[in-house]
Amino acid sequence: MKYCSHCGNRVEWIVPTGDDRPRHVCRRCETVFYKNPVMVVGCIPVWDDKILMCRRAIEPQRGLWTLPAGFLEIGETVAEGAARETREETGAAVIDLRPYLLFDIVHIQQMYFMFRSRLQKPDFNTTRESAEVKLFSQEEVPWGEIAFRVIDKTLQLYFKNKRTGQFDFQIYRIEAPDTQGR
Amino acid sequence: MKYCSHCGNRVEWIVPTGDDRPRHVCRRCETVFYKNPVMVVGCIPVWDDKILMCRRAIEPQRGLWTLPAGFLEIGETVAEGAARETREETGAAVIDLRPYLLFDIVHIQQMYFMFRSRLQKPDFNTTRESAEVKLFSQEEVPWGEIAFRVIDKTLQLYFKNKRTGQFDFQIYRIEAPDTQGR
Repeated sequence: MKYCSHCGNRVEWIVPTGDDRPRHVCRRCETVFYKNPVMVVGCIPVWDDKILMCRRAIEPQRGLWTLPAGFLEIGETVAEGAARETREETGAAVIDLRPYLLFDIVHIQQMYFMFRSRLQKPDFNTTRESAEVKLFSQEEVPWGEIAFRVIDKTLQLYFKNKRTGQFDFQIYRIEAPDTQGR
Repeated sequence: MKYCSHCGNRVEWIVPTGDDRPRHVCRRCETVFYKNPVMVVGCIPVWDDKILMCRRAIEPQRGLWTLPAGFLEIGETVAEGAARETREETGAAVIDLRPYLLFDIVHIQQMYFMFRSRLQKPDFNTTRESAEVKLFSQEEVPWGEIAFRVIDKTLQLYFKNKRTGQFDFQIYRIEAPDTQGR
């Protein structure tokens, strides 16, 4: 950030009065610009004993498999956002959304909020974002070809919890790759 | 938003290529500016059978009572943010944070994520943001003087769930005041 989005003046990187950390501040119109972590919302869509995954048709991680998820938009609840992303990326309608996992991904300034959900019916299709959309049993999941670590972790937790039927809400942190060797 | 924060050019309010809704876009440096809901994180700090509340020393809602909560900052997890806000607003250290409630407050583009927590010891103090910091039993809570509806709802749910000891994670939506008459 170099310029004030309100008045066009150059901004400075200073600690505002009464604050405890530097922010971008416009001294002309006295606006302080706050930057906050962004929420990604997604689903584990289930049909019978299988989960719906999508093979990414776009970057990043084009060609690899993921669960439907994307940025929460202004004007929607987290559950509405997760259902919208699922519809946009797989063509499927999900019902019975249940909060399941929150991931802090501090190094990329994001959180992921993942719901368990059920497909309303086994109708889905490829989309602009998904070159392939497919139901997988646990044995069929393409484990070596998962697009993001947060999705790999989501799937691992889901199948682990599925054994006991206990899907309590849980919070995890995904560390930066260089601190854990991947 | 009127000006591009990268190059200072005037921005336009248009639907970017491949998108489905209008965003602020700079045609000179081709930057698309996304705006997303912001996360507020907070705690219900418990000591014995009482909860710690603060009387606001600053606007908005100066003079009314609330639970410690504030905007999640870049560089911290949701639990770290909730503990930091509690420390900043009450001087207290909280431990044993457990995810409890998520509120969608769509009309103000915010989410509230509230943790249950325990005071490490009964040490707390007034702060720049809190004119008074005090432990309340359920009977003592100043119900008519709660600063925000989301905090009133948090307290109601907490004392309701406390009767059964079942504090499952729950999501609620806080509607705009004009749609529910308050």
